[in-house]
Amino acid sequence: MGATTDGTIADRLRARVVESPFHTWLGVRVVDAGQGWVRLELDAGQEHRNLQGLVHGGLLATLADTAMGLAIRTSVEPGRRHVTIAMHVQFMRPGRPGRIEASGRAVRVGRQIAHAEAALVDGDGRELARAQGTYSVTSLPQ
Amino acid sequence: MGATTDGTIADRLRARVVESPFHTWLGVRVVDAGQGWVRLELDAGQEHRNLQGLVHGGLLATLADTAMGLAIRTSVEPGRRHVTIAMHVQFMRPGRPGRIEASGRAVRVGRQIAHAEAALVDGDGRELARAQGTYSVTSLPQ
Amino acid sequence: MGATTDGTIADRLRARVVESPFHTWLGVRVVDAGQGWVRLELDAGQEHRNLQGLVHGGLLATLADTAMGLAIRTSVEPGRRHVTIAMHVQFMRPGRPGRIEASGRAVRVGRQIAHAEAALVDGDGRELARAQGTYSVTSLPQ
Amino acid sequence: MGATTDGTIADRLRARVVESPFHTWLGVRVVDAGQGWVRLELDAGQEHRNLQGLVHGGLLATLADTAMGLAIRTSVEPGRRHVTIAMHVQFMRPGRPGRIEASGRAVRVGRQIAHAEAALVDGDGRELARAQGTYSVTSLPQ
Repeated sequence: MGATTDGTIADRLRARVVESPFHTWLGVRVVDAGQGWVRLELDAGQEHRNLQGLVHGGLLATLADTAMGLAIRTSVEPGRRHVTIAMHVQFMRPGRPGRIEASGRAVRVGRQIAHAEAALVDGDGRELARAQGTYSVTSLPQ
Repeated sequence: MGATTDGTIADRLRARVVESPFHTWLGVRVVDAGQGWVRLELDAGQEHRNLQGLVHGGLLATLADTAMGLAIRTSVEPGRRHVTIAMHVQFMRPGRPGRIEASGRAVRVGRQIAHAEAALVDGDGRELARAQGTYSVTSLPQ
Repeated sequence: MGATTDGTIADRLRARVVESPFHTWLGVRVVDAGQGWVRLELDAGQEHRNLQGLVHGGLLATLADTAMGLAIRTSVEPGRRHVTIAMHVQFMRPGRPGRIEASGRAVRVGRQIAHAEAALVDGDGRELARAQGTYSVTSLPQ
Repeated sequence: MGATTDGTIADRLRARVVESPFHTWLGVRVVDAGQGWVRLELDAGQEHRNLQGLVHGGLLATLADTAMGLAIRTSVEPGRRHVTIAMHVQFMRPGRPGRIEASGRAVRVGRQIAHAEAALVDGDGRELARAQGTYSVTSLPQ
């Protein structure tokens, strides 16, 4: 998921995340981004733990969806809109409170459909989850 | 997803949800439950909206995972543990802030693997999302 | 998956299946169909077994995709086209050679996107697999 | 999906594929393999076409499942057994009759659960599909 870093793209995504009540509530931040990819991070806190003290899988799914959606955002024109229509997540390891990084990549962006994938790692670089997402891209609200 | 309501099962799940920091933070409540199924609700608020004013897909995925996990919880013995290993969500309609209800059902619970499904509807009974989840069931922590 | 049986719809799907080289090769048959649903069957033979003597999961995935696609076919106008864009399958039990029945249902058919689900049972009514599929619906070839 | 080629591993997988009635029927071949990965190919013929003349999605799903399962096979001890429990496939482009190559990779192999991914390309190197699979690994038949 290398590709060239583009400060303008990252700044635009940061503006979106800041304006989104959900992303602010979650505490997710844009680390870096370019054409077709994005890197996010989030500090999983006590409120994100389940009964076993592990980060809830829903939080990982949310981070993966956010990373994939923003990666697609960098690949569609400003006037168009993308909506998640299906998502699959594989959970490889339990996450513990602390830094989690999510990388999203647009796999293919077509006229109506876009596919993306994401990978989540913890602060020690251990992979927690991988995801695939499918998005509808439209000119007008559906 | 009928089946007989069981107050004791519902009470046990309520106790779990109350003790879980993540579920408290989300604001999810157990409406009803029985052997192999559960009904949850959540009032999606302003903090759950994305930039378009719609409920973020990650919240729906989280609710679906919670409903499926609790449905499996009602079907495995107290000493055993279940962990989400894969989850798929289909998003049918955008959700708006307000009441969301999630129904989870254990589709099959084996010695090591359990499968579940979930459906989410809004306050008008319109289906927002459907999910399938796969869980690892273990006696000891993995 | 009840709904009213419609002989005309079933006949139309049978004609499609007969004309499709892949479906003929597989040996899949349309048992019954109506608006938004279809029931198929296939006799899994020796050539569908894997090394363990069980029906290969790919055959079940293929049957599920076929059932979902035909269910959507009954719900879109003749001039339109549907293409699978994502599919998820849960495998509950190993299948043995013999009769397998697949039920497909259109969950929601929109202007551009359609969602469906399928369930597969063996000759003893035991559920082998469940699936969710997402389809792109277009007027012109993509 | 680089990694070191291992002729012995590839030969062992070839022996498995040859003995499997399903794989012989499909016509899939092992091109190359190593610890945790495999490359397969198949010549999609007239019998694999759907009504639109395209390769049926079920064939691509089958190839993906086969590639992921064999990749996991290279990572578990001879006495153990793996079974597909869930699979997700994204379809990016329609496939046409001709050569299709499938690469499978074991993403994580645990004591009871294994995760894998696969990518399928056509003879021109265009990506047709990507998949994620989850497998149960057991010592005894389930």
